[in-house]
Amino acid sequence: MAKNHRFNTDKSIHPENDLGLGNQLTGNYRLLDENGKFKAKRKGKFFWHPYQDLLEMSWFRFHLVIFLFYAVVNALFAFIYYNIGVESLSGEHYNDFFSEYFKCYFFSVQTLTTVGYGAVAPLCFLSNVVAAFEALTGLLIFALITGLYYAKFTRPKAKILYSSMANISPFKDGINGVMFRMVNQRNTDLIDVAIQLTLSWVEDDPHGVKRRHFQPLELERSKIALFPLNWTIVHPITETSPFYRKKLEDFKDINAELMAFVTAYDITFGQMVQSRKSYQYSEMNWAKKFLPMYYADEKYGSIIEYEKINDVQDMDLFDYV
Amino acid sequence: MAKNHRFNTDKSIHPENDLGLGNQLTGNYRLLDENGKFKAKRKGKFFWHPYQDLLEMSWFRFHLVIFLFYAVVNALFAFIYYNIGVESLSGEHYNDFFSEYFKCYFFSVQTLTTVGYGAVAPLCFLSNVVAAFEALTGLLIFALITGLYYAKFTRPKAKILYSSMANISPFKDGINGVMFRMVNQRNTDLIDVAIQLTLSWVEDDPHGVKRRHFQPLELERSKIALFPLNWTIVHPITETSPFYRKKLEDFKDINAELMAFVTAYDITFGQMVQSRKSYQYSEMNWAKKFLPMYYADEKYGSIIEYEKINDVQDMDLFDYV
Amino acid sequence: MAKNHRFNTDKSIHPENDLGLGNQLTGNYRLLDENGKFKAKRKGKFFWHPYQDLLEMSWFRFHLVIFLFYAVVNALFAFIYYNIGVESLSGEHYNDFFSEYFKCYFFSVQTLTTVGYGAVAPLCFLSNVVAAFEALTGLLIFALITGLYYAKFTRPKAKILYSSMANISPFKDGINGVMFRMVNQRNTDLIDVAIQLTLSWVEDDPHGVKRRHFQPLELERSKIALFPLNWTIVHPITETSPFYRKKLEDFKDINAELMAFVTAYDITFGQMVQSRKSYQYSEMNWAKKFLPMYYADEKYGSIIEYEKINDVQDMDLFDYV
Amino acid sequence: MAKNHRFNTDKSIHPENDLGLGNQLTGNYRLLDENGKFKAKRKGKFFWHPYQDLLEMSWFRFHLVIFLFYAVVNALFAFIYYNIGVESLSGEHYNDFFSEYFKCYFFSVQTLTTVGYGAVAPLCFLSNVVAAFEALTGLLIFALITGLYYAKFTRPKAKILYSSMANISPFKDGINGVMFRMVNQRNTDLIDVAIQLTLSWVEDDPHGVKRRHFQPLELERSKIALFPLNWTIVHPITETSPFYRKKLEDFKDINAELMAFVTAYDITFGQMVQSRKSYQYSEMNWAKKFLPMYYADEKYGSIIEYEKINDVQDMDLFDYV
Repeated sequence: MAKNHRFNTDKSIHPENDLGLGNQLTGNYRLLDENGKFKAKRKGKFFWHPYQDLLEMSWFRFHLVIFLFYAVVNALFAFIYYNIGVESLSGEHYNDFFSEYFKCYFFSVQTLTTVGYGAVAPLCFLSNVVAAFEALTGLLIFALITGLYYAKFTRPKAKILYSSMANISPFKDGINGVMFRMVNQRNTDLIDVAIQLTLSWVEDDPHGVKRRHFQPLELERSKIALFPLNWTIVHPITETSPFYRKKLEDFKDINAELMAFVTAYDITFGQMVQSRKSYQYSEMNWAKKFLPMYYADEKYGSIIEYEKINDVQDMDLFDYV
Repeated sequence: MAKNHRFNTDKSIHPENDLGLGNQLTGNYRLLDENGKFKAKRKGKFFWHPYQDLLEMSWFRFHLVIFLFYAVVNALFAFIYYNIGVESLSGEHYNDFFSEYFKCYFFSVQTLTTVGYGAVAPLCFLSNVVAAFEALTGLLIFALITGLYYAKFTRPKAKILYSSMANISPFKDGINGVMFRMVNQRNTDLIDVAIQLTLSWVEDDPHGVKRRHFQPLELERSKIALFPLNWTIVHPITETSPFYRKKLEDFKDINAELMAFVTAYDITFGQMVQSRKSYQYSEMNWAKKFLPMYYADEKYGSIIEYEKINDVQDMDLFDYV
Repeated sequence: MAKNHRFNTDKSIHPENDLGLGNQLTGNYRLLDENGKFKAKRKGKFFWHPYQDLLEMSWFRFHLVIFLFYAVVNALFAFIYYNIGVESLSGEHYNDFFSEYFKCYFFSVQTLTTVGYGAVAPLCFLSNVVAAFEALTGLLIFALITGLYYAKFTRPKAKILYSSMANISPFKDGINGVMFRMVNQRNTDLIDVAIQLTLSWVEDDPHGVKRRHFQPLELERSKIALFPLNWTIVHPITETSPFYRKKLEDFKDINAELMAFVTAYDITFGQMVQSRKSYQYSEMNWAKKFLPMYYADEKYGSIIEYEKINDVQDMDLFDYV
Repeated sequence: MAKNHRFNTDKSIHPENDLGLGNQLTGNYRLLDENGKFKAKRKGKFFWHPYQDLLEMSWFRFHLVIFLFYAVVNALFAFIYYNIGVESLSGEHYNDFFSEYFKCYFFSVQTLTTVGYGAVAPLCFLSNVVAAFEALTGLLIFALITGLYYAKFTRPKAKILYSSMANISPFKDGINGVMFRMVNQRNTDLIDVAIQLTLSWVEDDPHGVKRRHFQPLELERSKIALFPLNWTIVHPITETSPFYRKKLEDFKDINAELMAFVTAYDITFGQMVQSRKSYQYSEMNWAKKFLPMYYADEKYGSIIEYEKINDVQDMDLFDYV
């Protein structure tokens, strides 16, 4: 980028806006991926967090894990019953391995789930002890699954839908703005919605070393008390803006990234929630403006049309003299 | 409304009071319905949130859904057992479809609930496999219902009862006030109760386009540390008030709406709660004052009488010179 | 109280200290009882909150309720099975009412708890339907109890132990102070502990009408980041204090009450907790000072001795000139 | 320590930094142990908190407790069934005590877990009553365990890994700094991470009495909005620092302790979490600087290498003139 277009340095970062990212992340990749997830990988010590993994798993995968675990635990207990011997369980006896093993397997199922039909029941001391242990195991497993179900349902999750592009649009009073918008995808009530917008880019320092810069951007408003409809976030391009008198191309080669950090209080679930979004050079429009995405209706009140979130029209920008 | 009664514009809105509502909701309807729910409808992408729906359902409906689901799941499993064949389950055999199907149905019930009397038990491999799967299904369903019960019981819900009318009453020192009051209907302790009062109305802008305006109203006090009794919210009608030197009729044709947003911390449940209320023109009294709704009792302390929440008396307003 | 000892009026109350109590509670009783509970009774509309009642019940009572409920539900279902008729259940048949009824009763128990031994099992369509419904009922009841157990265990509850008396003691630099102290009785970590101290009393207004007054008291420190040991709260008696140049007797006839409101964040349970305490005239000591209640130990660190919380010694007060 | 190196007194403590620790803890021991736990022991009244104990127990111990409890409860019920008599339960009868007792024991297991095979079932009124009570007991126990599992999984717990040493390193602009660093060991997202750093030491007061002093230390930054990578905390050694013109040896004999208090909001679990760390004289390095512990990767983004958290190199300090 041309010397005379030099960006503001990040000396203006206020402590409360500090993102906790260093200035050495100068590689040619996004800091946040398209879903707002920070791109980082941990190496070294292995930390296994089964609870968290099960929590963040999709519902399909979660049920698959439960199903496989159920099948395997029963297989193990069946193996034990089989080895205790043919006389240890009541019911019919079979001469072939499979019939006998599956008798043990289904007895195990009936014990683990505490169904206990009783057609097959433990006869000897040892099979009774194993069955006692298995019934306890079963109850603990389902106690655990109960907790996991609840945790999966209630974990904080703001489903905020963002426009796929950010627009450079005319704002007002001769000032242009960087704009994108968002809607609350869930039917919950979000209150105290706060946003923090930061522009990050990579630039050579005086010694020729690449440094990543962060600059918080001023917003028309950075907090709203309610969030029932959509919210268009506006960064007015004033003299202090890094976008001031820039062209879109100026952002192309400096790995620029517009990062939004949204926090809100989800009053339906009683939890603080967070959402992130990032826009790269290729996700910014020059001289476009968002079209309205809601209208008033006598019967239902306001009608929000989700599919219009990306609807824009061409609109001349103000000329900065 | 007469030009010379022109309301204050909403330039005085502080960011922290921004309700997140645009100025284009100019239709002839309430923004909040009588229960404080924001009137909006989502259109477009279909978002199904079974957990949230079950959570917000009434207890009666919730149990109806469980009951129907239970009936249907058993019917499906009964169908499977019936099709596996007559020899797959122990117990008596019937020649008519209904008797045989209901035998399967009740076997399914006994498996899904893990009752497992054993009078009927699976005999063949296939019926054992289905029963194993059904017992797991049953346990998962009840694990899920356990979580839902807990979530329904504990979800944040401030039951604040508001007076049905707002009064224009004499306040003090020659100043009138807009007043309404509220009580905590639940037996829980609410602390840090904060209220934000906004007047909204629709007015033509200089170009003759209808615009919705929002103006936060100053309050005698907007936060209390405890909320054990009732709280009368007072907006003193000073020079900066949009009610200043207005008559009630002035609010009739401008779709005026007095909106209260209350947040509090429910110390019994450890959750932040929220409540909203709106008053329209037809819900405002001119020159009425609330009567006390609690009295001191030597034995019980303060006695709050809920049924007096709407008790008012006529009271002359102060004349503004 | 003598006219010339007139207390400061409560004009100095800052909004954030407003307790939400009116000035009309002038009866001759405490506002807070000895456990810090606000003395108020609701009258009028009946609001039944079974969940909250079960939550606030003692563990003993809670289990008694469960036990009685269990006995009654089984009695009802037994009554239904008995009326369906003697042929509806398998197992032995009895000629006397009691034996037959209790057979039904224990069958009900085995169904509700899903034990289902199978020695007794439903035979006819109707008994099968009722058993299917009862098994569902049982599972729902235990799902509910599971949620209640968890809620009872985890509900926010700061167990703060207060000294039974407040002392008027010498503080420092020639200034006396009103002092009381508290310890965290639970083994949890409380952080961000904040206290708000208010003196309340009843006094005649210029028209001879009794009015309750509230005055927040300045504290040496009103917030601590950690609360590992004990905390002595000190209100320094400076010129602005309502205790300034007062004798203890001055507080006797004005129904004075020293009210402490404590909030903290319980980091062990991840919840905000609250505690209250009030001291009346009869619970204040003149010219006493608390003795230390912890000492350093090379092995264990600090040793806190709970039983010393009320240990005081006589100590001359500073003379105010 | 030399008189002319006298430390700043703690007059600069701001109320919000008050740690709630008195100045009398002058014993020769750490205030916080190596895991950040405050070293204190309660004496006197015995407070038993079974829920909290079970919650803070390791998973292994927790399961051991459940297992033993299960064994003991069954042994007690078996004892009751045995004493009701040989005719009270169906199934085979044995002549020796052990066989008969274990028959009762396994019947108890099948009742408590609600497996209820039915091979053994209660025959008389009394055994039916006990079995009814045991089935209820079993369901309550497993309801409770379900709650405990969930509570153990979700209790707030920030797993922050700290460097084992704090370094005195050159910082910038001719100023040295006290530095240590931390990483988030869990895969959760911590936001609003705040740190408070305090130096504590023991010194004689003018009367020759040992007093513990606390001084909050200024930090380069004390709050970050995100915590995706590692964070190096820096206390710049300026004129107001207690480290100013000190040598490491000066801290040796005064029982100095550098205490860090970290709070953060865990967005994955929706909870505020806390972590503490303390460094003593023996855990400080003179003239060492941390080496980077992450690098940029085109594919994965930033790679954090946990095992490098303690990697340092020698680095000359700036000379203070």
